[in-house]
Amino acid sequence: MNYEQTLRLMLERGFLLPSSEIYPDALAGFWDYGPLGVALKNRYIEVWRRYLVRRDGMIEIDGCQIMPRSVFVASGHLEGFEDPIVRCTKCNLTLRADRLIQEKTGKIVPERLPNEELDALIASNNIVCPSCGAKLGSVRRFNMMFRVSVGPSGDEAYLRPETCQSIFVDFPRLFKVMRCKLPVAFAQYGKSFRNEISPRQSLMRLREFYQAEIEVFFNPDKANEFEKFDEVKSEVLRLALKGAEVEELTVSEAFEKGYLPNKLIAYYLALLHQFYRYVGLDMKRTRFRKLGDDEKAFYATSAFDFEVETSLGWVELVACNHRGDYDLSGHAKVSKKNMMVLDGDRDVLPNVFELSMGVDRSIYAIIEHSLAVEGERTVMRLKPYLAPIQVGVFPLVTKDGLPEVAKQIYSKLKMSFDAFYDDSGSIGRRYRRMDEIGTPLCITVDYQTLQDNTVTIRDRDTMAQERVKISELEQILHQRIYSYPV
Amino acid sequence: MNYEQTLRLMLERGFLLPSSEIYPDALAGFWDYGPLGVALKNRYIEVWRRYLVRRDGMIEIDGCQIMPRSVFVASGHLEGFEDPIVRCTKCNLTLRADRLIQEKTGKIVPERLPNEELDALIASNNIVCPSCGAKLGSVRRFNMMFRVSVGPSGDEAYLRPETCQSIFVDFPRLFKVMRCKLPVAFAQYGKSFRNEISPRQSLMRLREFYQAEIEVFFNPDKANEFEKFDEVKSEVLRLALKGAEVEELTVSEAFEKGYLPNKLIAYYLALLHQFYRYVGLDMKRTRFRKLGDDEKAFYATSAFDFEVETSLGWVELVACNHRGDYDLSGHAKVSKKNMMVLDGDRDVLPNVFELSMGVDRSIYAIIEHSLAVEGERTVMRLKPYLAPIQVGVFPLVTKDGLPEVAKQIYSKLKMSFDAFYDDSGSIGRRYRRMDEIGTPLCITVDYQTLQDNTVTIRDRDTMAQERVKISELEQILHQRIYSYPV
Repeated sequence: MNYEQTLRLMLERGFLLPSSEIYPDALAGFWDYGPLGVALKNRYIEVWRRYLVRRDGMIEIDGCQIMPRSVFVASGHLEGFEDPIVRCTKCNLTLRADRLIQEKTGKIVPERLPNEELDALIASNNIVCPSCGAKLGSVRRFNMMFRVSVGPSGDEAYLRPETCQSIFVDFPRLFKVMRCKLPVAFAQYGKSFRNEISPRQSLMRLREFYQAEIEVFFNPDKANEFEKFDEVKSEVLRLALKGAEVEELTVSEAFEKGYLPNKLIAYYLALLHQFYRYVGLDMKRTRFRKLGDDEKAFYATSAFDFEVETSLGWVELVACNHRGDYDLSGHAKVSKKNMMVLDGDRDVLPNVFELSMGVDRSIYAIIEHSLAVEGERTVMRLKPYLAPIQVGVFPLVTKDGLPEVAKQIYSKLKMSFDAFYDDSGSIGRRYRRMDEIGTPLCITVDYQTLQDNTVTIRDRDTMAQERVKISELEQILHQRIYSYPV
Repeated sequence: MNYEQTLRLMLERGFLLPSSEIYPDALAGFWDYGPLGVALKNRYIEVWRRYLVRRDGMIEIDGCQIMPRSVFVASGHLEGFEDPIVRCTKCNLTLRADRLIQEKTGKIVPERLPNEELDALIASNNIVCPSCGAKLGSVRRFNMMFRVSVGPSGDEAYLRPETCQSIFVDFPRLFKVMRCKLPVAFAQYGKSFRNEISPRQSLMRLREFYQAEIEVFFNPDKANEFEKFDEVKSEVLRLALKGAEVEELTVSEAFEKGYLPNKLIAYYLALLHQFYRYVGLDMKRTRFRKLGDDEKAFYATSAFDFEVETSLGWVELVACNHRGDYDLSGHAKVSKKNMMVLDGDRDVLPNVFELSMGVDRSIYAIIEHSLAVEGERTVMRLKPYLAPIQVGVFPLVTKDGLPEVAKQIYSKLKMSFDAFYDDSGSIGRRYRRMDEIGTPLCITVDYQTLQDNTVTIRDRDTMAQERVKISELEQILHQRIYSYPV
């Protein structure tokens, strides 16, 4: 299914809705999760916790979204987190200057180009307002952070544009109280905010969005003394080292060929790859793309984007950056606090390797990859442990006491599972409704139930039905739904 | 333990830390959760989902925190969500005017008093700046919402001061697509923001905080046609109807005596009461306090606060308000959208009953109520299903292959449980460290393990140890940790 069809299904079935849509001043780039979206996102994060956070023994935090000015002086966002914009002198339409020039000339325009050069390009190419044709004003810089004033005296603060800043400022205390040793990874799931000029495509470019970020702190001299590497060395990665061409090779092959800078980074890329396998992306439509020097952030010594192919093209899901000591030295300088930690018998300023995951986009990609139209039915082949509704409970017909038995079963199951009771429409239609939202199992109460206390369980993928005892339902559901790969 | 001792433990053991503490411009009223705090809060929310959301079949959403101006025109926050403040003309200290006068005169001063009357009280009582003794300026109103500007044209928007506004604006679409019928409850867990004048006491009065709110939509003519009432009628509530005096009586007694306005409200108060029993508050130190007309919000037709006694005194955890049709009629008026829904054969504008829960305060209260000092040990008697670390894994000594076996067990368990491996210090000290953070079970590998593949499991509360097979560990842990009440 393409983007429009997928989005329509998400809107119609309660995965997603435009935020504050009843108002004419509803803002672009803000979307709310409905009940099915909440459940899917929560389970996605549980899998992230399982295969990244817990597996690796990471320190998970949940920091504030509003942070004081100094944090963004140190991080460089106050000065550098800016887009070049240009406004029409007549209709006030505002656009990204670099993107506009790129569109009109077909040439690549780096966003870092000075305002004057962008002005010159607009003039020399006779670019006017694409909406009304009038003259454009001068290019200026627009900081993408949202500013807030705190307290009656209006202290300067900002909504964080990335969750990782909380990790960097919390690092000194938590390293100590959690008795950490290098290397150690910190993780955080939470909201970040960017005042995008042109938000678009629902979950793909939001102004308020969820990130799940991991920051690995390590001694740069020991990035190859890393035993855990062996756990993942046979994971097969798809690397795009130059342009779009993909090479498939194991983690150890990639490391030996020098494609991956060190064992520590190789290990975390492999964990990330496993994670996306487990949440059910079609891995043939993913790649780790190595960024060129013109693409990567100025502080990154090496950078890979984990990308996925959707009906909207290739989309970045996770930025994997070797950030060097940029973050900790920046915060050390501005805060005048010592950010060094003891590693063995030496004080070290740790380097940071980051996995910065866009959660909303990942959710979208999983849904799109899971959806299939098969004859009459649309089926969302979510992994059972990701399904928002885990089990449907139906009476075959709405008479002869069948609904009462079905409701009893539902009442029992709903405490432990996300269960859904439905008795409206034909049984086939009820199965279809569950298929479309990814429910892996449906239980039907029929006349035989009244005789022998058995029900049928119908499998979403095979559509096969089997008969089981009511007394064994909980155990069977538990086994089949929480069927995590080992 | 008192507040200071509890807070110290939370800081030293990684439950909590002051946000951005390395900076001098760190802001009051912002706290980050450390790894143990994150885990405890997540499990608390899972229990909330189990005994409120799933049990009742609620529609859970996760809405945006930034919402456009119109939302707060309709909700009344733009005009009415204000505190009276007064600033010293010399040192610029800013204070809540009503609280200052109350403190100095000992008389109750409603915050709704007009600015002029507050000015007059300050003058007639000769109140000066409590810090420097200088003259105070005039009283003015301070809106407690954080404003943000969205997009390059700076559209007016605000950080929501309560999560429920997302529920009200999402209600029309979700009622339809989720095929709801009245009565139906919507739920949301997420952040809200209030620019408090005087944030204090860490989790007790924050500027950025977590709410878990439930909004029950119902036909006011049918609030007593409510069968589910029978499920909870024998739950014993502690009601404070006038002042602090508490009366203990069952839900049905309270309803029959006319203490509770209708069966629907009685049911939801009972569910809430059960929930707090299950998360382990000492219920003898809780009460539902009925608010007087001078205390409750102007739109509330009846209101109860669920309160808990801590070392800081009685603290409100949940505001339970019958909001009438205030919210939906406000949004209908400003948006000009029809907010009525079909109930049977009639169009109805639903009334709303709300359970507005402060999550951070609840977490604090649970920790304080769970902590006990018993001789040499401090023990946090958290319910096993709330414990941040669910199991400790120790080798008795760090030689003879014991650590290797313990690490193997740990590696296996850590995927399914929040496990912690520790081999430093005496075994007694390691048990104490786990006691202090509420870990219900500890596994110790000793010399007998090498002979017969058994380990000891030590119970936090009884300190009893028993010997079990390694192969049965997962099942035993699962049973004891997820020991949810039925």
